[in-house]
Amino acid sequence: MITKATVKYIQSLQHKKVRDENNMFIAEGPKVVRELLDTAVFECEQIYCTETWLEGLDTNLANRYAERINVIKDFELEKISALKVSNNVLAIFHKKTALDPINISKTITLVLDDVQDPGNLGTIIRIADWFAIPTILCSRATADCYNPKVVQSTMASLGRVNIVYADIFEKLQKNSNIKKYAAVLGGKDINGVGKIKEGFIILGNESKGISKEIVAMADEKISIKRLGNAESLNVAVAAGIILYAVS
Amino acid sequence: MITKATVKYIQSLQHKKVRDENNMFIAEGPKVVRELLDTAVFECEQIYCTETWLEGLDTNLANRYAERINVIKDFELEKISALKVSNNVLAIFHKKTALDPINISKTITLVLDDVQDPGNLGTIIRIADWFAIPTILCSRATADCYNPKVVQSTMASLGRVNIVYADIFEKLQKNSNIKKYAAVLGGKDINGVGKIKEGFIILGNESKGISKEIVAMADEKISIKRLGNAESLNVAVAAGIILYAVS
Repeated sequence: MITKATVKYIQSLQHKKVRDENNMFIAEGPKVVRELLDTAVFECEQIYCTETWLEGLDTNLANRYAERINVIKDFELEKISALKVSNNVLAIFHKKTALDPINISKTITLVLDDVQDPGNLGTIIRIADWFAIPTILCSRATADCYNPKVVQSTMASLGRVNIVYADIFEKLQKNSNIKKYAAVLGGKDINGVGKIKEGFIILGNESKGISKEIVAMADEKISIKRLGNAESLNVAVAAGIILYAVS
Repeated sequence: MITKATVKYIQSLQHKKVRDENNMFIAEGPKVVRELLDTAVFECEQIYCTETWLEGLDTNLANRYAERINVIKDFELEKISALKVSNNVLAIFHKKTALDPINISKTITLVLDDVQDPGNLGTIIRIADWFAIPTILCSRATADCYNPKVVQSTMASLGRVNIVYADIFEKLQKNSNIKKYAAVLGGKDINGVGKIKEGFIILGNESKGISKEIVAMADEKISIKRLGNAESLNVAVAAGIILYAVS
């Protein structure tokens, strides 16, 4: 059984404002929830699951989270799920406090200037985790990393990358000694940039790119050489190629 | 004015079966529709748009498509749109017949083994267009390239890449003289593979990867070196990095 108030509360966690006020977020589906429970980076508040999911859970986890597990019916899960088709389990986790000031010394730091699609942000977080980038610095208009779609697409990488929301202009200005690379169309071929040991790599909004004032701060404008005719590359794909090229 | 029958017909084009039967597909939003009209690779059947969109259309295009333009009300567009928020224009285009047999000589050919997410397929088509890959060979269970979400994310690249659906096992078998590279976890670092002038690069399903029988046909298993902890990379990101590395 799940009360009306709980249904309402969980549904409200779809909204950033409510997530921020409660310092909580939701994760859905066996794969994500299982990974988040396994890595235990985020404290688990409650688990709502079907009988089937619980039966498949290993004894260790089942015991550890026994007091937080609520077995509910499919139609109840349907009500609280944000997925088109609910998927056996939904869990509420505590958000983690981002580490700020960030450690930018002797490492690459990714900077996102208004990346607005949650799917893109999720994919970029996974890429950062793949290439061992410790920090992603996000402008305040960048998608919320606790948006359910982001959580879905990052898997446990969400817990391994430090994601900081800030005024990126200020942050970059403060770190004038660290080299800044802006990913733009028509910049220097990244193939010729070489390995980057330390620096900010800045990626922009899906349609508008990086804002003028941020581009103006860049020490180097970098690009992926186009061999064919596509107008642009998806921002997450660009992030992947650039990090591959300079790591 | 738009008739009930037309509304029903356009809605039905959301389904692959109907798209195949009619050999038509839909594109939505000013950017995509405009690009498809500009490049004129796909014959335009009908355009349904708001007054606002028509006013912004340049005279050349407005004249060329005059007989095919239907100005409708916002609430009518809402009815036929597959987007959450309809976006000024929806157009119906004729599908293009894929070129088969494909030209695989002296070029890279991308092979997709059951890539199921339309967003991923769309992104991969754009990547292929960026790196001047002429052909994508798709297994029959790969997402339909005329799915509205694919059309949305490929932009005009859809018209510039030859996308062929076939039994990829058979196709690869027939071309035993062409080198086959399978993207897997734990293969040879692509950084050491060098430039590829001719060959099939095979990418697999989002969760299951490449099927065993296809992996078994590969001459070389290739991977992107992992420096951090993420379990995997998104398949479109992997496609981008691999094509960057070997192009």
